[in-house]
Amino acid sequence: MHDLLEKIFLPAFANPVLETRHDSAVLDVAGTRVAFTTDAYVVRPLFFPGGDIGSLAVNGTVNDLAMAGARPLWLSAGFILEEGLPTDTLERVVASMRQAAHVSGVQLVTGDTKVVDQGKGDGIFICTAGVGRVEHALSIAPQSVRPDDAILLSGDVGRHGMAILSVREGLAFESPIASDCAPLSPAVLALLDGGIEVHCLRDLTRGGLATALIEIAQASGLHLRIDEARVPVEDAVQGACELLGFDPLYVANEGRFIAFVAGAEADRALGILRTSPHAAGACRIGEVADEPSGLVTLRSRIGASRLLDMLSGEQLPRIC
Amino acid sequence: MHDLLEKIFLPAFANPVLETRHDSAVLDVAGTRVAFTTDAYVVRPLFFPGGDIGSLAVNGTVNDLAMAGARPLWLSAGFILEEGLPTDTLERVVASMRQAAHVSGVQLVTGDTKVVDQGKGDGIFICTAGVGRVEHALSIAPQSVRPDDAILLSGDVGRHGMAILSVREGLAFESPIASDCAPLSPAVLALLDGGIEVHCLRDLTRGGLATALIEIAQASGLHLRIDEARVPVEDAVQGACELLGFDPLYVANEGRFIAFVAGAEADRALGILRTSPHAAGACRIGEVADEPSGLVTLRSRIGASRLLDMLSGEQLPRIC
Repeated sequence: MHDLLEKIFLPAFANPVLETRHDSAVLDVAGTRVAFTTDAYVVRPLFFPGGDIGSLAVNGTVNDLAMAGARPLWLSAGFILEEGLPTDTLERVVASMRQAAHVSGVQLVTGDTKVVDQGKGDGIFICTAGVGRVEHALSIAPQSVRPDDAILLSGDVGRHGMAILSVREGLAFESPIASDCAPLSPAVLALLDGGIEVHCLRDLTRGGLATALIEIAQASGLHLRIDEARVPVEDAVQGACELLGFDPLYVANEGRFIAFVAGAEADRALGILRTSPHAAGACRIGEVADEPSGLVTLRSRIGASRLLDMLSGEQLPRIC
Repeated sequence: MHDLLEKIFLPAFANPVLETRHDSAVLDVAGTRVAFTTDAYVVRPLFFPGGDIGSLAVNGTVNDLAMAGARPLWLSAGFILEEGLPTDTLERVVASMRQAAHVSGVQLVTGDTKVVDQGKGDGIFICTAGVGRVEHALSIAPQSVRPDDAILLSGDVGRHGMAILSVREGLAFESPIASDCAPLSPAVLALLDGGIEVHCLRDLTRGGLATALIEIAQASGLHLRIDEARVPVEDAVQGACELLGFDPLYVANEGRFIAFVAGAEADRALGILRTSPHAAGACRIGEVADEPSGLVTLRSRIGASRLLDMLSGEQLPRIC
């Protein structure tokens, strides 16, 4: 995917907005900053503990807007349906989208549906685009990260990826793992409304917490130090990861993000986050060291330090 | 598709913007009217005379913005690729999108790519969303159509549908039929910049000219009178339609639209349209009668009059 982006899409469409490589493009409409983003959703199975392709298609795009600090306003949805799809499956997905949109206060204002022949699709694919209004004057980006910033995490990690995997592989754990799929805009807007000077935001999707941290370290050129013991992982997720050979730091989430804020504001920011329904488990997991490096150091539970590497090899396909 | 919209999508997402049922939602951003639209593209084959899925995915969405009289500014693109797709196929499609975006002056500012396993997709599906700025103060809608309005058509009809069908069925005609796939915003913006009071615009996609006219007659409650002899149809398209049992008035286009303007402004509007590269063949095909009815009457070449009906039965699948 990284190759496609570097070799085909970026060179073809080169423009300053695309070059920022943010999840959302931030555009100027008559002096108002507007965020615009899109994602295609092909998750398999369509329904999984904690969510489905419908809630994912709304929350995923809402979350990309939230990571620009934008208030999500409007969504578009394009559906590609495979011939023979049961009507009640579509109805369940649409009801789930409606509910997710309601929770985020976002309106679905335009859409399109195409049907493809059997065997040329896979039930339902959904592509949503979102438009939001940027109401703050901050520059929320890796380039705004500063030495001594605190690194806050909005909750436990690894649930979405392990929820999908366990359903797909028919694995039954003692306590079932539910996806963390959730809208992040309430938590982010609470931080901004609370006057917290947010330096950088990143949602932890494909590649998990580790990948998000490494990308921000590289883009900021600073050294991030993380305490592994402070990163919450549910017991069931930890157990499933150990059983299947995954590292929860690299497993996908769909309702978690990290925020970089000035160290002095960290406690107040955590207090605000913890009042938000999907960030009740927010915690401080590390800080930005006062030294250039572009690396992420993880202090493990037993006190040893190691550098976090980009995940090599295959990731789970079709988790979102 | 009409059933899906009426029974599943509209009830689930009911809101005033969606209720307008326009191709584009028109939204307010701090006092500026912004148009927002989306379409999914699943055309088969990916490449056809006169275009490909890439040019279609850009022009189709640009045209939905144009039908709100909006200046197209930004596009998003979501790609769903089938595993095993040759890289050069993707490169050709992306190059075509780039070229189409350049022609329309629209920037692709955000995107996403997903890969699905072989046999779960069909080469490439693309979903684009578009954002444009409404720079006029008109209400361009069927409700603004007035008795004595002239009905203008931007060029010959039936090419896109017959181009796709001829490639798909391996039909060779004496002169090959090329799709009319083209951006409509230059012609529409020329009308608006020329001060023409445009009452209604509609692009002639699935269902063709006849369906667009019937929808506007029904929504306005007025009677539209069309002269069949004034509707341009290329000889090759006419021949193919006769051979295969299609009526060119119902065949899909991807670069044609109708405009309703006050009768007194019709000649000036035609003069402006004909200077635009994709509306050089613009002509007046009829007028709005000063009587309520919600019907469309077609005066045939031999002078007989008949009512146009909504097409019943199957339309060509996957033409866009």
